[in-house]
Order: sequence, then C-alpha cells, then structure tokens
Amino acid sequence: MAKSTLLKSYEQLNKQEKYYSEASTALIDEIFESSIMTLRKFDRIPLTSKVPKKTYFAYKRGKKLSRPINQDLFEDSAQAWENLRRLMTLNRTENNITAGEISKTIYSIAISFCAAIDLLKDGDQKTPGTYFERLMAYFFAWRVGVEPKTQIQVSDIDDERIKLKTDFIFDLGPHKRKFHMPVKISTRERGIMFWADQRLLDGVYGMERYMGTAILLTETKLDVRKREVVEICVPGRWRLYQLYVSKLKRIYYLDLPVAYAKLWQEFPPLAVKSFGEFFTEWDELTPI
Amino acid sequence: MAKSTLLKSYEQLNKQEKYYSEASTALIDEIFESSIMTLRKFDRIPLTSKVPKKTYFAYKRGKKLSRPINQDLFEDSAQAWENLRRLMTLNRTENNITAGEISKTIYSIAISFCAAIDLLKDGDQKTPGTYFERLMAYFFAWRVGVEPKTQIQVSDIDDERIKLKTDFIFDLGPHKRKFHMPVKISTRERGIMFWADQRLLDGVYGMERYMGTAILLTETKLDVRKREVVEICVPGRWRLYQLYVSKLKRIYYLDLPVAYAKLWQEFPPLAVKSFGEFFTEWDELTPI
Repeated sequence: MAKSTLLKSYEQLNKQEKYYSEASTALIDEIFESSIMTLRKFDRIPLTSKVPKKTYFAYKRGKKLSRPINQDLFEDSAQAWENLRRLMTLNRTENNITAGEISKTIYSIAISFCAAIDLLKDGDQKTPGTYFERLMAYFFAWRVGVEPKTQIQVSDIDDERIKLKTDFIFDLGPHKRKFHMPVKISTRERGIMFWADQRLLDGVYGMERYMGTAILLTETKLDVRKREVVEICVPGRWRLYQLYVSKLKRIYYLDLPVAYAKLWQEFPPLAVKSFGEFFTEWDELTPI
Repeated sequence: MAKSTLLKSYEQLNKQEKYYSEASTALIDEIFESSIMTLRKFDRIPLTSKVPKKTYFAYKRGKKLSRPINQDLFEDSAQAWENLRRLMTLNRTENNITAGEISKTIYSIAISFCAAIDLLKDGDQKTPGTYFERLMAYFFAWRVGVEPKTQIQVSDIDDERIKLKTDFIFDLGPHKRKFHMPVKISTRERGIMFWADQRLLDGVYGMERYMGTAILLTETKLDVRKREVVEICVPGRWRLYQLYVSKLKRIYYLDLPVAYAKLWQEFPPLAVKSFGEFFTEWDELTPI
C-alpha cells in the first residue's frame, strides 16, 4: 500500500514537464509523507560512525539495511518542510530561515525517499538517483526563477552539431547568470566529470560563463557486515582538478563531508558548502 | 589443477619487480598455456554479433558464459606467441611480423586469461584487469626499453607535494620521448579519466611533454540472456574531450571498435588504432 502510493507519486513527478510548479510541490509533499510512513514501520538501528562528529543510523527490514542517515540532519516529520514551502511561496526564505535549516529539511526529504526505496526494492540505484536530480532541480529552479535545460550545444564541427548531455543548465537570460548544475547522489570515482564538462563549456562559451555549481547528497559508504559508516573523499585529486582542469564555482552537499569542508580555506580555493547556502548566496555568485 | 597453476603463475607475475624480464616472459608463457588448457575443457558457443564484420563466440561452463571472444583475432595455441617472443628477443619485430599479427597474438594472450577467469571465478573483474595492465606494461616496456613508474609528482602547493597515481609513465630520459600510458580492459563511462589526467600532465610539464597513449582491450558488451554482442562507444563525447580537454596522441585497442576506427580521418583527429601499430610507430610519435 505505502509502496504503491510512493512509487505512483514518484512516477507522476517524473512526468511533470516543469521542474518547479504547484503540481511538483504537491507530489514532493506526497512522496515525503509516504517515505516517512514507510520508514516508520521499520526499526532504526545505530551504526558505528567513523566520521568525526557525525552520528549515523539505518532502517532495517529483515536482513536489509537502508543507506546511512545522518541523525543530526534528519527529521522524520513534514513540519519543517511545511514551513519551508510556505516561505518559498511568499519568497521569504532570505530572512526567515537559516541555510542550516534549509539544508536539514531538504536532506530529510531526499534521504527518506532513498532509504525507503532501499528497503522496498532490491539494489535499485536508479530510482533514488532520478528522484534526487528532480528534487534538486525543483529547488534550484524555484530559487533562480527559470526552468533548466538538460543539454547544450557545444560544437559545430563542419556541418555537424554536437550536443553535450548534462544534468542541468540554468540560463537566466542574456547578460545574466548562467549555471551548469550537475547532480549526483555521490561522486565515487566520477567527480572528474564535473570538471571535464565545465572545461567543455568554458572552451565553447568562455571561462565560467556557465558557473559550475554541482549538487550532491553525501559521500557516506556503509560496510554492511561491520555496520560501519565512512566518508569516501579524494580532496587531493579534487584540488588537482580545480588547479589544472577547470574551476568549479561551488560544490554543494546536503550532508557535507568533513574532508571537503576545509578546501575553501586552502589553495586552490574550492568552495564545498551545504546546499542551504545557495539560497542566500546564489545572487552574489560571479564568474572568476 | 589448471586453476591453481593459472592463478599461481598470475600471482608470481604480480610479484615481479620488473615489468619486462625473462622471468616475466616465462610466467606469461605459463599463464597463456594454462588459460588455453582451461578453455579447451569447455564448449565454444556462437554469439549473435551486432558488430559489423566481427564474429564473436564464448566459452560455456554450466550456466556461466565467458566474455565474448573475437573469432578472427583469437588463436588458441601458443605458436604465434612463440614466434613473437623469438622476434622480440632478437629485436626483429619491425620487418618480420606485421602489426596485425602482433595485435592478434597479444589479443589471444589477454582474452584467453580473462575468459578463463570468467569461468573459474564468480564476477571477478579485478584479476583480469590487473593481469591486462601488467601484460600491456610488459610489451610497452620491452618496446621502449625502460621500466615504467606508476605515479608522478604533479604539484608543489606551498609545502605540500601532490602525486598523481596513474597507470604507467614511461620516461625514456632527458629530451627523449615520455609516454603517459593508462590501461583499461574497456572504458565504459570512464574514458574521460584519460583526457583529464593528460590535462594535468600538460598543465604541469607542458603540452604533450608526456604523450598520452592509452591501451584498451575491447568495448564489447554481452547481453547474456539474448547472447548478443554489441560495442559500447561514445565517439561524439571523445571528440569533444579531444577538442576541449586535452589531446591524446593515440588510443590503442587489441579489438579495435568499429565506431572509433574512423575518428582518425575526421576533425578533431583522434588516432584510435590496433595496439600492434605501436610496435612500428612508437619511435616516430612526436608531441603536437
């Protein structure tokens, strides 16, 4: 019952033409409620966190464990989301809610769906990934006020046009901000894709004409046998990419990894922040 | 019995300090013989090839299928390898053997081991990958006459040195050729790594001071249920990388994919060739 409501709403959301709309808001609402209801049927079990200052737990269904959930960021009620939704409608997020509260609310919406799918389906990575993309595009589209494109023309080689398929491109209009927004649940070894696509766009349209603003959920990895949570991070590689491949403006996380949070202060500066920050700083981001 | 000989020789090869040596030659010889002996115990079954002008088959053990093997490139005897080995010892490969024959022989050595592991183990991708790296480094090291390094220092950021882990770097000495040689069984979605690492090296050491010469086995993919073979290729993306990220000098395959073979003739030129070609052209490759 809960499963079918959850997946039905998810499928309807995928069919929406617009990423941000009243209909999308209502469907995200339904999905969040169904996810919470699904999870409440199962036990929470504590995990051993190897991540400094972070506590993780998982939901358990028989032998199956959900992905790790950050205890301090998770609220299993729709109350905070109702508040955020109201402030979004009134366009009052800037002064009435902190970046931290926004991150927490969006984290709860995203992770509850992912964890519910972990328990309801077997090894399904696609459904959580697709939902997370849509959810991030929903919030981004609301904040910047335009709908995204999912591909961009990058080259005319002789008479042949080559289009780059990318997660999302938000173009606010001539002489205005343009964002290149890749979205992934986590990077694993694929982080280089962000810098490589950014470099293509830089080459074709000029340095940072499209500002690279990637969004990720988390970098946690669960050792199911030991029930241990670690964060898989490669700060050294990322700094090399930022130095030699291209420059990303921001990398936003909902569960910000410890090893990336300090890259902001070192050379080359790489601003890895909580996604909630975007809601207040988006209008001040400038190329270079 | 065959399994233990095969894996024992493989483990011994991994322990060799030098990639090219008489001991390595003897071990590769043993591994090839054991692989063939293993495969001969099982039936060959034909596959439906969706690749123009290529015929594939697989070995079958119970319900298990090996990866696809290109029929025209495969010889299940060590005769051609004995000939190549003799010519290598005499340093007479340039005039006494064609690039096509070299490719065929090395393909047979590589694919027979991979197929044997497919049948002897369950879902083991690491062993074939590790062997393939070692095998390619063996031939490359013989041809260029130096041993490779597996990491290179790419940056001094303040007082911190960052090293790039890469498959192989062959440095023939001051003012001589230097090769950046990544090795993979196939690229899947990871091809961008080649161009990204190349760009790092270009940034640190100057454009193409290390010439990018990647080596791959194949891009075939088997649909086990339908028993169909396809080649997964992304020529459009590769051309974009070659235009905007960095310039690879060569991409060598042992089973050259149809969709990549023509990229040589188009703009931007991307020379994707059979690995056998390297044996004759390596000394003529020049940066830019």
